[in-house]
Amino acid sequence: MEEATAILSRTPSTLDALVRGLPDGWVAANEGGDTWSPFDVIGHLIQGERTDWIPRARLILDHGEAKPFEKFDRLAQFVESKGRTLPSLLDEFAALRRENLQALESLHLSADDLDRRGRHPALGTVTLRQLLATWVAHDLDHVMQVSRVLARQYSDEVGPWRAYLRIISGNQG
Amino acid sequence: MEEATAILSRTPSTLDALVRGLPDGWVAANEGGDTWSPFDVIGHLIQGERTDWIPRARLILDHGEAKPFEKFDRLAQFVESKGRTLPSLLDEFAALRRENLQALESLHLSADDLDRRGRHPALGTVTLRQLLATWVAHDLDHVMQVSRVLARQYSDEVGPWRAYLRIISGNQG
Repeated sequence: MEEATAILSRTPSTLDALVRGLPDGWVAANEGGDTWSPFDVIGHLIQGERTDWIPRARLILDHGEAKPFEKFDRLAQFVESKGRTLPSLLDEFAALRRENLQALESLHLSADDLDRRGRHPALGTVTLRQLLATWVAHDLDHVMQVSRVLARQYSDEVGPWRAYLRIISGNQG
Repeated sequence: MEEATAILSRTPSTLDALVRGLPDGWVAANEGGDTWSPFDVIGHLIQGERTDWIPRARLILDHGEAKPFEKFDRLAQFVESKGRTLPSLLDEFAALRRENLQALESLHLSADDLDRRGRHPALGTVTLRQLLATWVAHDLDHVMQVSRVLARQYSDEVGPWRAYLRIISGNQG
């Protein structure tokens, strides 16, 4: 739990350091098609704070497997972030994360609690421990995504170095 | 140039926010075999500040293609970082990056300068513009790597959610 919250508490400042104040071209850049920009990603993380992690944790503690999770809306940010600025989204994400980490702490979860089960609408039975680990990995997934989206704007500009840059070549190794 | 330095100036604080003060288990974690930990990555970035980006830019401006770049030592950090702490590496990286961005500014590069050519020992002819774009993408590549290394420590802990987490499943899409 301490390990997990060490990452969870850092994500807002990591993303803040990475994107706040960047020129608009970077903030709105994506990887083509319906892929997401850094702006879209912050909105998605806000949605997670509002409707996913802590609400699902409470559902597991209150109802176990009897009541499946609400389906998470992966596209909500395209409505919710309309007209917003990046700094205001970053501020909101940081505030919600702070509140949710306080909420998590106030649950005083025991090892037994972490083994309690809930029901994911698509994945089936999951534990509270898995939910919290996923919260952490999901943060890092989106930090990775924002770095990748930014780097790929230079896919051509790097010239022959493309071969060495896994972030551009798409090779994760 | 302004776009590039916007990212370059942010990388030290991004990595600082992501890893400073994390429990040792996270800092030393890697992806198995001879893959790198967050600690190794910061040492590698320091090495780049010392021997790669600005020294190569100066070589291009002073000697063009006549004098190939020194080969970059990708493993130097395994000697240089011995006995160091993560906070001291983060401080050093931030200080070197600050100095190098000042050095870059003091070169007053024109569009013509950016088109000047140098010789990479393996890749052949490259331009100063490509070198600077690679500096940016290389930063982001390693921010991505650190996020991925951290997330993969939870490969098993996330349970069935593994299918949805590209950072763990290895699917970049």
